[in-house]
Amino acid sequence: MRVHGQSYRAIFVADDGFTVAVIDQTRLPFAFELRHLQSAADAAEAIREMIVRGAPLIGVTAAYGVALAMREDASDVSLERAVRLLGAARPTAVNLHWALERMRRVLLAASAAHRVACAYEEAARIADEDVAACAAIGRHGRAILEQVRARRNGRAVRVLTHCNAGWLACVDWGTALAPVYAAHEAGIPTHVYVDETRPRNQGAALTAFELGAHGIPHTVIADNAGGHLMQHGEIDVCIVGSDRTTATGDVANKIGTYLKALAARDNGVPFYAALPSSTIDWSLADGVRDVPIEERAAREVTHVRGRAEDGRLLEVEVVAPGSAVANPAFDVTPARLVTGIITERGVAAASRAGLLSLYPERAGG
Amino acid sequence: MRVHGQSYRAIFVADDGFTVAVIDQTRLPFAFELRHLQSAADAAEAIREMIVRGAPLIGVTAAYGVALAMREDASDVSLERAVRLLGAARPTAVNLHWALERMRRVLLAASAAHRVACAYEEAARIADEDVAACAAIGRHGRAILEQVRARRNGRAVRVLTHCNAGWLACVDWGTALAPVYAAHEAGIPTHVYVDETRPRNQGAALTAFELGAHGIPHTVIADNAGGHLMQHGEIDVCIVGSDRTTATGDVANKIGTYLKALAARDNGVPFYAALPSSTIDWSLADGVRDVPIEERAAREVTHVRGRAEDGRLLEVEVVAPGSAVANPAFDVTPARLVTGIITERGVAAASRAGLLSLYPERAGG
Repeated sequence: MRVHGQSYRAIFVADDGFTVAVIDQTRLPFAFELRHLQSAADAAEAIREMIVRGAPLIGVTAAYGVALAMREDASDVSLERAVRLLGAARPTAVNLHWALERMRRVLLAASAAHRVACAYEEAARIADEDVAACAAIGRHGRAILEQVRARRNGRAVRVLTHCNAGWLACVDWGTALAPVYAAHEAGIPTHVYVDETRPRNQGAALTAFELGAHGIPHTVIADNAGGHLMQHGEIDVCIVGSDRTTATGDVANKIGTYLKALAARDNGVPFYAALPSSTIDWSLADGVRDVPIEERAAREVTHVRGRAEDGRLLEVEVVAPGSAVANPAFDVTPARLVTGIITERGVAAASRAGLLSLYPERAGG
Repeated sequence: MRVHGQSYRAIFVADDGFTVAVIDQTRLPFAFELRHLQSAADAAEAIREMIVRGAPLIGVTAAYGVALAMREDASDVSLERAVRLLGAARPTAVNLHWALERMRRVLLAASAAHRVACAYEEAARIADEDVAACAAIGRHGRAILEQVRARRNGRAVRVLTHCNAGWLACVDWGTALAPVYAAHEAGIPTHVYVDETRPRNQGAALTAFELGAHGIPHTVIADNAGGHLMQHGEIDVCIVGSDRTTATGDVANKIGTYLKALAARDNGVPFYAALPSSTIDWSLADGVRDVPIEERAAREVTHVRGRAEDGRLLEVEVVAPGSAVANPAFDVTPARLVTGIITERGVAAASRAGLLSLYPERAGG
């Protein structure tokens, strides 16, 4: 996608053919800066310090981290060391471990002499697969926006989204925002209502930044405002991402998603989750019961990070000192509230039957 | 209610018998400071600068502002000047104008010689009427919490609230929080889940402060988290305030209230609005259609005020620069989602018949 008129991926190999460039997401939305990773340690730091975030991007960064390690030392010992180092950078990130395991398997099968080239190729393959999946999600979702457009008489299709499931969380296109970018490319006018997404403000900071940088009209709202807008007919469709989806179509996503799904249902607004099938957990049947919800640090609620008048990025305290805080990071939207699930293979009903119709190979799994 | 073990009202006449003391709410929750108003101009400034906020408290402050004006000059000209000055401090505050009109009527009927005493008496009467209404709301709401308690086997009754409808918005007790204070006084253990209430954070700052200062256990959560807590059976009852209620029981309250009502309905959690009958607009039948919703400044969304590490109160910018912002300040919860309306006369069904059963004098109105 574009930033100030120039095309970017969230991670790419620099012109020297080996340095790995990433966008420093801790500086967004106030500064757009690239960071150049030259070693596995740099890659681990980028993951640990959340310079890169979003499951797909973390996985690809780890894969390139292995490639950087191979460049220094292509031995088995070096490979195992890099996998350990990178895996420890965010221990709970499933996609991170998946990518590292894939790199490890491929590289152990290669001779040390070929490992550098092989590692860069495999990391690029992981990145390209993610881009292809997101682009496909974009195409399938675009068809939904195209249908809405017919009712809008040339006015913009109004999409509400929650959190950041855009290209900054992936490599390119994104998941929830991929249909918006695809529609934009196809000349379908869209306007995105962006939930602030407390407590970490990913909507106000990242989604608003990436939409603005690409030139997509959008409006940031408090998380509290979406229901009111839907009551007054100001939202045509909701599209969110998903961190984990059950085989029955329950959608775990950033905390607050469930509230928007309830408002969508109450007002007849279609509600979609857009996700690569890799995030479907075919072993789970009941999301509210079975998906463990991470409780994150109280400080995310008690403090807000932003830019002070003097330009410095700093945190201010916003909660009465001494008050207890709870900070569940995700919630589960039951399938009954989900109009459809947009995947790289098409749009499925949010049900076991719906998902299996797109992924028949999972039947009996 | 209590602050650090001492009883306070949000406004009171100081020991000298004429100075009017208020709590500086712009300094909360990080500092508890009284401001002493000595003139109508001081009172107008306190209203304008939101040192006092909340409809009842603004009305009482304006009434005392008239009393302070009478002390300087008890003439008709001075009275009219004070009413104009104070009325301009927050032009859209209905309760402000109601209180000023009441003071004006009473004082015009009194001779100039008696106006000072008369003005302080009338202002005190307005304050006491508000306290009596809130205390009655507390008693009626307490009965609801008492019923819940029976199911909790001695564990705390868990109440979710949104925004600040506590004693800091009134003179004492509050509306939504009055049942909690009344329950606390009666030895019924409660635990309040406090929505942060973006964009102005009244929950995290004011509700959390007043509950903490009074010694009520509570937990601050992001506005996004309430649905998740209800899904997991962690909320027993929701109680919110109301800025305006229709004759049919639709409840206009701080933006985001509607989303919590939807989650309550979806999870079988009772949802109450607590309000003095003075906020019922008997002329309105359809809240979503008829209640005008104030669109407030974008800066409330783009900037967050808090305490920096060095102790200074300052604002930080949190939204991507250049992004558009929408900031509707209230939403309407349809009566169908409201279990009951707690008023100073008792608990009514959220319907015209329900409200008229408590206020039969409004029938045919």
